[in-house]
Amino acid sequence: MGARHALNILNKTPRAELVAAFSPDGKELQGLEAVVIGTATSVHAEETLQALEKDLHVLCEKPLSTSVKICQDVVDAAARKPHLKAMCGFSRRFDESYQDVARKIAEGAIGRPTVIRSQTCDRQHPDPGEHHDFFVQYAAWSGGVFVDMSVHNIDLTLWYFGSNVVPKSISANGVVAILPGLKQYKDYDNAVDIVEFWDGRIAHYYASRMMTHGQEDVTEIIGTDGKLNVNLNPQKNIVNIYSRAGITREVPGHHWGRFEPGFVKEANEFTAACLDDTSVPLEFQNAVKAVQIGAWLQEALVSGKQIRFDESGKRIDRANL
Amino acid sequence: MGARHALNILNKTPRAELVAAFSPDGKELQGLEAVVIGTATSVHAEETLQALEKDLHVLCEKPLSTSVKICQDVVDAAARKPHLKAMCGFSRRFDESYQDVARKIAEGAIGRPTVIRSQTCDRQHPDPGEHHDFFVQYAAWSGGVFVDMSVHNIDLTLWYFGSNVVPKSISANGVVAILPGLKQYKDYDNAVDIVEFWDGRIAHYYASRMMTHGQEDVTEIIGTDGKLNVNLNPQKNIVNIYSRAGITREVPGHHWGRFEPGFVKEANEFTAACLDDTSVPLEFQNAVKAVQIGAWLQEALVSGKQIRFDESGKRIDRANL
Amino acid sequence: MGARHALNILNKTPRAELVAAFSPDGKELQGLEAVVIGTATSVHAEETLQALEKDLHVLCEKPLSTSVKICQDVVDAAARKPHLKAMCGFSRRFDESYQDVARKIAEGAIGRPTVIRSQTCDRQHPDPGEHHDFFVQYAAWSGGVFVDMSVHNIDLTLWYFGSNVVPKSISANGVVAILPGLKQYKDYDNAVDIVEFWDGRIAHYYASRMMTHGQEDVTEIIGTDGKLNVNLNPQKNIVNIYSRAGITREVPGHHWGRFEPGFVKEANEFTAACLDDTSVPLEFQNAVKAVQIGAWLQEALVSGKQIRFDESGKRIDRANL
Amino acid sequence: MGARHALNILNKTPRAELVAAFSPDGKELQGLEAVVIGTATSVHAEETLQALEKDLHVLCEKPLSTSVKICQDVVDAAARKPHLKAMCGFSRRFDESYQDVARKIAEGAIGRPTVIRSQTCDRQHPDPGEHHDFFVQYAAWSGGVFVDMSVHNIDLTLWYFGSNVVPKSISANGVVAILPGLKQYKDYDNAVDIVEFWDGRIAHYYASRMMTHGQEDVTEIIGTDGKLNVNLNPQKNIVNIYSRAGITREVPGHHWGRFEPGFVKEANEFTAACLDDTSVPLEFQNAVKAVQIGAWLQEALVSGKQIRFDESGKRIDRANL
Repeated sequence: MGARHALNILNKTPRAELVAAFSPDGKELQGLEAVVIGTATSVHAEETLQALEKDLHVLCEKPLSTSVKICQDVVDAAARKPHLKAMCGFSRRFDESYQDVARKIAEGAIGRPTVIRSQTCDRQHPDPGEHHDFFVQYAAWSGGVFVDMSVHNIDLTLWYFGSNVVPKSISANGVVAILPGLKQYKDYDNAVDIVEFWDGRIAHYYASRMMTHGQEDVTEIIGTDGKLNVNLNPQKNIVNIYSRAGITREVPGHHWGRFEPGFVKEANEFTAACLDDTSVPLEFQNAVKAVQIGAWLQEALVSGKQIRFDESGKRIDRANL
Repeated sequence: MGARHALNILNKTPRAELVAAFSPDGKELQGLEAVVIGTATSVHAEETLQALEKDLHVLCEKPLSTSVKICQDVVDAAARKPHLKAMCGFSRRFDESYQDVARKIAEGAIGRPTVIRSQTCDRQHPDPGEHHDFFVQYAAWSGGVFVDMSVHNIDLTLWYFGSNVVPKSISANGVVAILPGLKQYKDYDNAVDIVEFWDGRIAHYYASRMMTHGQEDVTEIIGTDGKLNVNLNPQKNIVNIYSRAGITREVPGHHWGRFEPGFVKEANEFTAACLDDTSVPLEFQNAVKAVQIGAWLQEALVSGKQIRFDESGKRIDRANL
Repeated sequence: MGARHALNILNKTPRAELVAAFSPDGKELQGLEAVVIGTATSVHAEETLQALEKDLHVLCEKPLSTSVKICQDVVDAAARKPHLKAMCGFSRRFDESYQDVARKIAEGAIGRPTVIRSQTCDRQHPDPGEHHDFFVQYAAWSGGVFVDMSVHNIDLTLWYFGSNVVPKSISANGVVAILPGLKQYKDYDNAVDIVEFWDGRIAHYYASRMMTHGQEDVTEIIGTDGKLNVNLNPQKNIVNIYSRAGITREVPGHHWGRFEPGFVKEANEFTAACLDDTSVPLEFQNAVKAVQIGAWLQEALVSGKQIRFDESGKRIDRANL
Repeated sequence: MGARHALNILNKTPRAELVAAFSPDGKELQGLEAVVIGTATSVHAEETLQALEKDLHVLCEKPLSTSVKICQDVVDAAARKPHLKAMCGFSRRFDESYQDVARKIAEGAIGRPTVIRSQTCDRQHPDPGEHHDFFVQYAAWSGGVFVDMSVHNIDLTLWYFGSNVVPKSISANGVVAILPGLKQYKDYDNAVDIVEFWDGRIAHYYASRMMTHGQEDVTEIIGTDGKLNVNLNPQKNIVNIYSRAGITREVPGHHWGRFEPGFVKEANEFTAACLDDTSVPLEFQNAVKAVQIGAWLQEALVSGKQIRFDESGKRIDRANL
């Protein structure tokens, strides 16, 4: 992701200039005003804090951390430097189709958004061994399938339902179907959950590492007076192939094939906020809430037990134990 | 086709009773009131005339004949027995989707229908030898690709544009790409044409025997204020198959897989007209006009020369020679 | 439903003869060999028992009862008359596309089926008052949204996962978004759930009465080596409408518009089993298990508490209380 | 188009620098190495010749001219300056989906490409008066619907069939359905044609200014062993809207909404060819052939008479007169 961000800044963000990529060279770093952090999740927070310390604007890949506390520390540190722009890169916020959905919801096209179904499903690598090794190693530090993958779906929920929604209960279940090595990290290759909110809304997510056909990230928003969805029929491009097998549409192998234009837009809008001193388009605090919900989902998944909250959002299920 | 019609009458036409199928037995034929003719095209006319002679209602498969004159003779014979119901089986007239299009056009959904694109494309049999032999033998008596296949598209044009449209010019071209044996019968495995009408409308058809994926009969009607199409994305059923190849939808192998419910409806409506002495839903004269246009298309295809007509529909291109 | 079944038997089931519909007339009932029960759920069981008592074959609409015990009583009664055919009408078992999925799974097209997502979503009547009144009255005796609607999804799960799957946990949540009158019956207009099975599989269902666009019953089966779905893109027919709004496909308003051919096939196959004394295509015991799971789903939905089972299927969550 | 090209060079072509846009200022023009010509067709040729004269690389919007002779003069002028890069901007050559089709054809995915159906269909402006005025004024200098719109389809044909195909006959028909003002310029708002080639292939095109739903550019390539198509189901983005009307997908209003990424790629590849002194990806001579075929189509359209060629490509129909 770091290299991709660097290339976007270099090639597709006309108002930005790539000063350095991973450079320890002080000379090269002169003139640096902003950094994009696309490293491993485990160092996101520390690097963001260092950047803020050096008075640099920061665009950090999601999640800031797999620890809610650390996420909040980073957001607090940024709040102490209000002249700096700090943004967590939820790239789907910059995707044209997701933005179209937000616009249509705001215009009342579907009444009150009531149920969201959202899935992040990764392609299964054609080589099972390679697929296994990659994702098992990845699981060691990813924070688990719901923190790593569903955090996007949580963020979409906060966008479409409003960032002030309060969970009432969280239930989750998972299976290990093709990646037995995940068990050592208490992770799963397929997981589903339900998040019930106090204002009469429901989210349910599906995360999977098992799609043979490619990347399949679908989101449906069902309102009291209509429904919208994004990417229900995934497609690599707009070619259909007619053969003895029938009619076939290819599917992107990676999220990059689906979301690349969103990443470019993200880089450009972040650059504009830095240069024009306008607000970044995403609330930084949101990044904490998304990880918080993801961590609860992951806890419910691993424990197999429902988590419950009172209307203020205070957790109440532990009191029962 | 004969067997299929017989089974429809037997099983799916509650108001009809199957008295006999291909029976020479006088006893079995007692009580016979109506016949369905689903034999080879070359005997359609004669059998229809004999049925009328015996005072039987007749539903005859399209076309009545590949000869326009014989078609007209049959229609004239039926006209002399107005107490009998006679209908030529253009099954698409009974297909729910084509009927929906007719209804929407009548309601003004697309303004004035101006251009129709319609194709009848048959599956290429997986065994090339078998495919070749079948269609070459078939070509010997089918009347040619435009009479045999496009007659459906012509009938749809008469339905959606009005049966009184007058051709102004007809152009056609074809190729022999996979069935060299067709050449001996001056036929083609792929053919396209343009029919221009005097009232400012255009039809263009595509007929092919070369589809690897299955039967693909698409019709688009473009109006001055909208567009409708039928079967743009052919499908055997509503299952999608996700695999390493992508996302695949299977396609029916034969027109029967696409039009079976229409044939059933046709049998039922014809039965109702016979029993209740109401008009059959299709003008019999139409069957002559469809074959006439098909024969002109075939002539233009074989000669490679445009055919022209004056506003009364009288052919004028020969006069030029 | 009763009238629809009667018309299917009358018109589209050639080997059956409609002797009577709802007749109290003893004379009319002479010759009766089999009955189809399509009345209100509350009398299904009693009527089935009476029919068995009179030595009649029975095809009963789902569910046999909203009470698991009564369902089992009916199945037991049928077991005591093995010469009679008794079948609970899960019509989707006779739908061509669902059957194609079953065939493809059996052929190994998707590896091991691991996750099933299945939804039964009813159209919201254009008149909100009428919509409200109908479904609220219906809720009084329907057994709740999961028993009434999701029982189809449960049956599909038993079909595709195997009828011997043992639930491990069940979680469910619902909202009342548009039908406030449902609250008096402890029912919901939108509900989602997760059923975890002991053999490492997961089902999640969505039931809704809120679709503005029409009936939308989607099923996806995700396997370790592929995925299949049915009706992902609902359609009334195969017409596309192009207008200033874009490209639009209409959707059936009722399940009848989607499943009518399945009901016909069901009537025909049941008739064949009666006449030929072959097994009915559906295990009768299945109907008990589907209602049992539906009842648990409904309990989890109303209580908001997860239900848990040991590996033998014995419920263990109550012991914890 | 000029402004769009300039913005692409400025913002999305990292290796290029925008020196000036439409500037008469000699000082600004210093350092100019290449020009992009996106002016009115009538001045394309002259501006290209001037640019070559000044020793500048040139990317000129299609067509170079509506006159075949002038096109050839421009190509000849460029041939005299082989150190300069000259390219005619057929943007679809840079579209990812069209490129995927070219790759699949080259890999043999559909056997021998035999029939191409390709359409360029523009949106009808919601305001009929504005729509009329714009396109009637445009028709005054556009060269006619086939030169202006179908030239893209011709270029695709040369790409997928090979640029050495020789026409055997050309037939065309058109109607004026909504833009009566076109008649004064002998132009049409809907036109179809057939181009037959000597090597047993057929192209048929449809050009229209009458689509209410938006831009609809579809291309189908039918081979002896399969079929490919591009954009059969046009879409503005990947959102589906579910409402009482059914399920709707919006469509781009303009070709820019469909082809923008292709224009960007074109600018980048042209820049690379200039900087690295490599071949431009499109043969310049091709631009003459495409206009030549377009001019014949337009002649056949206006005269209503078929045009014929011998195997060497020499026109023979005039000799017949």
